[in-house]
Amino acid sequence: MRILAVGAHPDDLEILCAGTLAKFAQDGHHITMCHVGKGDKGHFHIPNDELAKIRRKEAQLSASRIGAESVCLDLPDCEMFNDRPTLVLFIDLMRSARPDLIITHSPTDYMPDHQVVSRLVYDASFHATLPNFKTSLPAHDKVPPIYLMDSVAGVDFAPTEYVDISDFIEQKKEMMLCHQSQVVWLKEHDNLDITDFIESIAKFRGIQCGVPYAEAFAVVNRWPRLRPQRLLP
Amino acid sequence: MRILAVGAHPDDLEILCAGTLAKFAQDGHHITMCHVGKGDKGHFHIPNDELAKIRRKEAQLSASRIGAESVCLDLPDCEMFNDRPTLVLFIDLMRSARPDLIITHSPTDYMPDHQVVSRLVYDASFHATLPNFKTSLPAHDKVPPIYLMDSVAGVDFAPTEYVDISDFIEQKKEMMLCHQSQVVWLKEHDNLDITDFIESIAKFRGIQCGVPYAEAFAVVNRWPRLRPQRLLP
Amino acid sequence: MRILAVGAHPDDLEILCAGTLAKFAQDGHHITMCHVGKGDKGHFHIPNDELAKIRRKEAQLSASRIGAESVCLDLPDCEMFNDRPTLVLFIDLMRSARPDLIITHSPTDYMPDHQVVSRLVYDASFHATLPNFKTSLPAHDKVPPIYLMDSVAGVDFAPTEYVDISDFIEQKKEMMLCHQSQVVWLKEHDNLDITDFIESIAKFRGIQCGVPYAEAFAVVNRWPRLRPQRLLP
Amino acid sequence: MRILAVGAHPDDLEILCAGTLAKFAQDGHHITMCHVGKGDKGHFHIPNDELAKIRRKEAQLSASRIGAESVCLDLPDCEMFNDRPTLVLFIDLMRSARPDLIITHSPTDYMPDHQVVSRLVYDASFHATLPNFKTSLPAHDKVPPIYLMDSVAGVDFAPTEYVDISDFIEQKKEMMLCHQSQVVWLKEHDNLDITDFIESIAKFRGIQCGVPYAEAFAVVNRWPRLRPQRLLP
Amino acid sequence: MRILAVGAHPDDLEILCAGTLAKFAQDGHHITMCHVGKGDKGHFHIPNDELAKIRRKEAQLSASRIGAESVCLDLPDCEMFNDRPTLVLFIDLMRSARPDLIITHSPTDYMPDHQVVSRLVYDASFHATLPNFKTSLPAHDKVPPIYLMDSVAGVDFAPTEYVDISDFIEQKKEMMLCHQSQVVWLKEHDNLDITDFIESIAKFRGIQCGVPYAEAFAVVNRWPRLRPQRLLP
Amino acid sequence: MRILAVGAHPDDLEILCAGTLAKFAQDGHHITMCHVGKGDKGHFHIPNDELAKIRRKEAQLSASRIGAESVCLDLPDCEMFNDRPTLVLFIDLMRSARPDLIITHSPTDYMPDHQVVSRLVYDASFHATLPNFKTSLPAHDKVPPIYLMDSVAGVDFAPTEYVDISDFIEQKKEMMLCHQSQVVWLKEHDNLDITDFIESIAKFRGIQCGVPYAEAFAVVNRWPRLRPQRLLP
Repeated sequence: MRILAVGAHPDDLEILCAGTLAKFAQDGHHITMCHVGKGDKGHFHIPNDELAKIRRKEAQLSASRIGAESVCLDLPDCEMFNDRPTLVLFIDLMRSARPDLIITHSPTDYMPDHQVVSRLVYDASFHATLPNFKTSLPAHDKVPPIYLMDSVAGVDFAPTEYVDISDFIEQKKEMMLCHQSQVVWLKEHDNLDITDFIESIAKFRGIQCGVPYAEAFAVVNRWPRLRPQRLLP
Repeated sequence: MRILAVGAHPDDLEILCAGTLAKFAQDGHHITMCHVGKGDKGHFHIPNDELAKIRRKEAQLSASRIGAESVCLDLPDCEMFNDRPTLVLFIDLMRSARPDLIITHSPTDYMPDHQVVSRLVYDASFHATLPNFKTSLPAHDKVPPIYLMDSVAGVDFAPTEYVDISDFIEQKKEMMLCHQSQVVWLKEHDNLDITDFIESIAKFRGIQCGVPYAEAFAVVNRWPRLRPQRLLP
Repeated sequence: MRILAVGAHPDDLEILCAGTLAKFAQDGHHITMCHVGKGDKGHFHIPNDELAKIRRKEAQLSASRIGAESVCLDLPDCEMFNDRPTLVLFIDLMRSARPDLIITHSPTDYMPDHQVVSRLVYDASFHATLPNFKTSLPAHDKVPPIYLMDSVAGVDFAPTEYVDISDFIEQKKEMMLCHQSQVVWLKEHDNLDITDFIESIAKFRGIQCGVPYAEAFAVVNRWPRLRPQRLLP
Repeated sequence: MRILAVGAHPDDLEILCAGTLAKFAQDGHHITMCHVGKGDKGHFHIPNDELAKIRRKEAQLSASRIGAESVCLDLPDCEMFNDRPTLVLFIDLMRSARPDLIITHSPTDYMPDHQVVSRLVYDASFHATLPNFKTSLPAHDKVPPIYLMDSVAGVDFAPTEYVDISDFIEQKKEMMLCHQSQVVWLKEHDNLDITDFIESIAKFRGIQCGVPYAEAFAVVNRWPRLRPQRLLP
Repeated sequence: MRILAVGAHPDDLEILCAGTLAKFAQDGHHITMCHVGKGDKGHFHIPNDELAKIRRKEAQLSASRIGAESVCLDLPDCEMFNDRPTLVLFIDLMRSARPDLIITHSPTDYMPDHQVVSRLVYDASFHATLPNFKTSLPAHDKVPPIYLMDSVAGVDFAPTEYVDISDFIEQKKEMMLCHQSQVVWLKEHDNLDITDFIESIAKFRGIQCGVPYAEAFAVVNRWPRLRPQRLLP
Repeated sequence: MRILAVGAHPDDLEILCAGTLAKFAQDGHHITMCHVGKGDKGHFHIPNDELAKIRRKEAQLSASRIGAESVCLDLPDCEMFNDRPTLVLFIDLMRSARPDLIITHSPTDYMPDHQVVSRLVYDASFHATLPNFKTSLPAHDKVPPIYLMDSVAGVDFAPTEYVDISDFIEQKKEMMLCHQSQVVWLKEHDNLDITDFIESIAKFRGIQCGVPYAEAFAVVNRWPRLRPQRLLP
C-alpha cells in the first residue's frame, strides 16, 4: 500500500504514530510523511526562518530512519486556514502521494493546527478524486480510508484500533530524538520530557490491549471510506 | 407552510429527502429546492461549464415533478467557504424563500460541501432575521426549525424522526432519474446504481419504523428552533 | 388511543407527566395511571401500612381529576426486583390495560425504583404479546411505543419531544396537591417545595421549546416500537 | 480458533451473524452455535413443549449446514434471569466450548432476552477462568474477546467492524430457512418476510462498507478483552 | 487569579455567567469582561453605529458593578470569521488580559457568533503563548484552562461544574438590566422577558445541584488545560 | 467528612483510589474501606476459605497504613446478585458508615462484580435514608454524592475530576503490596506486574492533568447528589 501520514508540525507524527509507520515500513509499504507547518513557531529563542530550516532537516532525518519520503507544505505554524489556496495545496499533496491509506490528526486534538489539518486532509482527499477540480496534477483514483491518531496525552480519545509497536518503541524514540530542537521546546513550553512522555503513553495504550507498547487510532467513520478489513499493521 | 430544502449539489435532495418533499407538496405546502453548488465537478468527461448547464436543467426538471421552485446559488462545487460573500448569498436565500421550515444536510455528512452547506444554512437562517444585517432584501420574520437529512449511506446518523414515503418511493426515484448525468457519474466515481441505492436505504429506514419505505431526519437541537409539535409530514 | 402511564410511586406521574396526561384526557383518550410501589416508604412518621392506604387514596383522587383509571401493583417501595413473579405482575398490567402507547420512567432516572420499573415495563410490554407466555390474561396484540418521562430535576436527560402543557399547568399542580402526604415528605427528605419545583421545571422545559410550560420526553429508540408519526399530544 | 456464538433463541444467530459464521467455518475454525432459550414462546398456535422440540431440530439442521456444533441451554424463553443457577449454566457453557472468541447479542438489542444473554455471556466468560469458582468442569484458560452482533433492524447500533459476507448471503438465507416455524411466526407477530429482511439489512450494511452484503459488529470495549489485531474473518 | 470572560455580544456574559463573575470579584480576583461584537445588530430600529455606542456604554456600566475591566474587540455582529486578522485580535486580547482562567461560550451554543468566538478563544489562547507568533504584545506565559458557559436555554448542554450564585442573583439581574437596549430587543426578537428568563434558568440549574440559584459550566477537556483542582468559585 | 470507599474485592481500592484515600486521611477525614467480596476466588492454588482469611488480613493491613477502618461484607466473589438480602447488607453498610461522600466502582468497569457493587452502592445509599425501610440500624440522614473510580486499565472511562497523588504514590504502592496473594494472582491470571501497572496508570492520568501522578474519577451525575463544590481532595 501507499501510506500518507500528515502531521501539523515536523514532530507530530513521531509522537503519535511513528511506531506504526516503522511497522508499515518493515512490511514493505511505501510511506510519505508530511508536515504541513514548517515548524517556525516551536522555540523560545531561535528566529522563525532559522528554526524552519533546522526543523526541515530534523524531519528529513527522522523519515530517513524508516526509508519514508519526507514532504513539507511549508505553511507558517498557527496560520493555517481553510481557504482555497491552502485547500489546493492539500489536494496536490493527495494527487502526488496517491495514498491507499491516510493517517492524520483527530479533529478534536488539543492544538488548533492539528484540528485544521485534520479537516483539510478530510476535504482534500475527497476533492482530489474529481478531475473537474483542476490543479497542476491529475486526479487521484480513490477516496481513501483515514485513521486518526491518538490525541496528545490521550485526552478524550476513544480508540477503535490498536497497533502493537513493542518491537518498534526504540525506533519511535530515536525518530523523536531526531527533533532535537523540540526536546528543548517541549521541556520549556510544556514541561515535558518527550521520550518519557512517548514511552508512558505507549505503555498505557499497550496495557489497554495486552501488549508492552501500542499506539491507538480511530477510523474515520464516513462513507465511502469504511472497509470490511483491517488496514493497520 | 413554506419549506426550504437546501442541498449542496443538484441531486442531493433527491437522494436524501425527495419522498418527504413530494409528501409535503401533496399536502399543499410551498417548496423551494435549492442547490448551492452548480454541479460542475460531478463528471469524468463533461467540462465544468457545460456540466453546470446540464445539471441546472436536470434540477429544474426534477423540481417541476412536484411543483417545487428550483433555485441555484451558483457556487462552484468543492469551493464553498464560510466567508462574508457566501454568507450573504445564504442570507438572501432565506430572505427570499422565507421558510417556516428548513431541510438541509447533516453537519457530519460524508462530503465536505455537505458540511459547509449545513453550517451556512444554520448561520444564515439566524442572521437573516436581523434588520441591521443589511442586504438587498428585508429581514425574515422568524428563526425557523431545521431538519437534517440522513447521511449518505446512513453512516453515523441517529434519526430523531422518520417520514413514511411508501406512497412516494416511485416519485423519489423518478426525480433522481431526472439527473441523468449523475446516474453515470455515481456509477463511475462511487460504483453506485443510484436508484437501487435509494431504494435500499429507504427500505432500511422503513424497516426501522415499521413501513415499506421511509426517510430519516434529525431535528437541530438548538434554541429557539425547537417546537412542541411535529412539523414533518 | 389507550394510554398506560407507569410510575414507581403514587406521585411520580404527577411530577413528571400529569400535564401531558391531562391533555391526552381532554382529547378523549383512555388513560390508565399505574403506580407500582404502594408508597409505604415515603414518610418519616406514618407507619408503612397506614401510609400505603393514605397514598392509594391520594393516587385515586389525583387520577379522578382527569377521569383516568388508577391502578396499583402493590409492591413495597424499594423492594422491587427483576424476578419472575414481578415480571408476571407487569405482563398482566399490559394485558389488562392493553395500551397503544406507554409512558414510564427513564432507565437512568435518579431513584433505583424508577430504574427497575423502566426495565420491567420494557420487558413485560414485549412478553405480553406472546400467547405462549401464559398468565391469567390473554396476550396483548401489539408491542407498543414507549415514551420515557423527564428525569427528576432534568439531570442528564436529552428530550426528543416536548408537550406544550401551558393550558394544563394548574391541573398538573392540583393533581400533585392530591398527594398531601408527599408535600410534607418531599419538604423534609429532599427540601423541596414540590409545586414550586414542578412549575420551575415545566417553565424551563417550556423555555426550551418556546411555550410557557412544557413536559419533556424521550422516545424509546428500539425496534419494533418506532413510528413515523407523533403520538404525544 | 474456537468460536462460540450465543443467541437468545434458536434463530437469532442466523438473523444476525450466520454469514460470518459460515465464513469462519470455511476458514477451518471450530464453531459452537448456542441458543439459550429453547424457543418455546415463538408461535401463536403450537404448544410450548412441542414447539421447543421442533425448534431444537431446526437449530441443529441449520448448524449442520456449516458443520457447527449446536448447543441449547434449554431455558424457557422470556424467563431468563441473572441468578446463580443460570450463571453456572453459562460458566459451564464457556468451560465446555472453551472459546478464543465469543459472538453474542448487544446489551441494547431490542428484545429483553437478548439483553439478559448479553450480560450473562459477559459475566460468565470472566468467571469461567477462575478455578476457585467450582462447577462440574475445569476453568477456562482465557478471558476471550467478545463481538456484539448488530441490533435487530440496525436501530441505535454503532458498528466498529464489518464482515464481507457477499459469498455467504445465500448460505445465510438457507440457514434461516431451516427455521420454518419462525418464517410463520415472524410474519404473524412482526409482519416480517424474514429472508427479505435479512437480505435488506445485509445489503444496507454492505453499502456502508463498500461490498454487496455485510454483517456489522461492535467489539466489547473492556479490559482485558481488547487485542491489537482483527479477529473477525 | 486573573479571569478573562469573553462573550460574543455586550450582554452575553450577563446572561450566562455574571453571578459567577460577581462571586469571583467578591473573592478579590481581577476580572476582564470582553465582548467581541460591538452589538450593532441587536435592534429593530436603532441604526448600527448609534446602537454600537449605546451598547458599549451599557457593557461598561454593567462591568463597573463588579469592578471588572470592560473590553470590546469592536467587530460587527454576525460578521466574525476565523481569519488571520481576527485571530491576531484575539491573541492580543490574551496577551493583554493575561488570564489564569478563561470563561467563554460553548462551541455548540445556539448563535453562530457564540460558536465562532468559542473557537477563536480556544485557538488564540494557545497561540498567544508562542513568542515566534509575533504581534504588538509579548507572549503570554501559560495555556489557561477554559470553562464553557451554559448554552442559552440550557439546550443540549452537559454541565461538569456548577457555581452557587444564590447570593449574587440580584447582582446578576442588575447587570443584565444595564443593557436596556436589549430588554427591548429580546422581547421583540425572541419574545423573552430577559430577567425572568435569567432567573428561571438559574433556578433550574440551582435545583440540579441543591441550591436556590446556580450557573452551569463545562470544562474544556483538552490537554494541557486540565487541572486537578477546582478553579471556579 | 466521613468517606466510604467500596470495592468489590480486597485489593480494588488500592489499585483504583488508594492515593486519594491517603490524601483524604492526611487531611483528617474519617475513612471506611469496604470490600464486598471476601476475595475467595483470586488464586490458582489456595482454597477458598483459606484464601478469604488471608485476604481479610491483607485488607486490614493495607487499611491500617492510612488509619482507615476496614470492613468486609463477606460475600463470595462472583456470586453477588441484586436481591433483597444483599441490598439490606449494603443499606446497613451505609447506615453504619454514615458517609458524607462515597467512592465506588464505575458501573461499566471490566469485572462483573465491580458492576454489581456499583449498582448496589447506588441503590442502597438512597434506600438507607428512608426510615420506613427498616433494618437493624437507624436511617442515614443524607443521600451522599458518589464518585466513580477509574476503570481498570482506563478503558472507556471519561474522567470528570483528577486528584493529584504525587505525594502519595509510594503509599499507594505500599498499600497494594500488602495484598501479597494478589501480586502472584495478577501475574498468573492477568500477566500483570501490579506495582508497575499502578504506577503506569497513575503516570498517564498525571500527564493528562499536568502533575507527576494522579487518579481519575467521574462524579455520579444524578439528582440529588450533585454539589456546587469540589469534594475530592
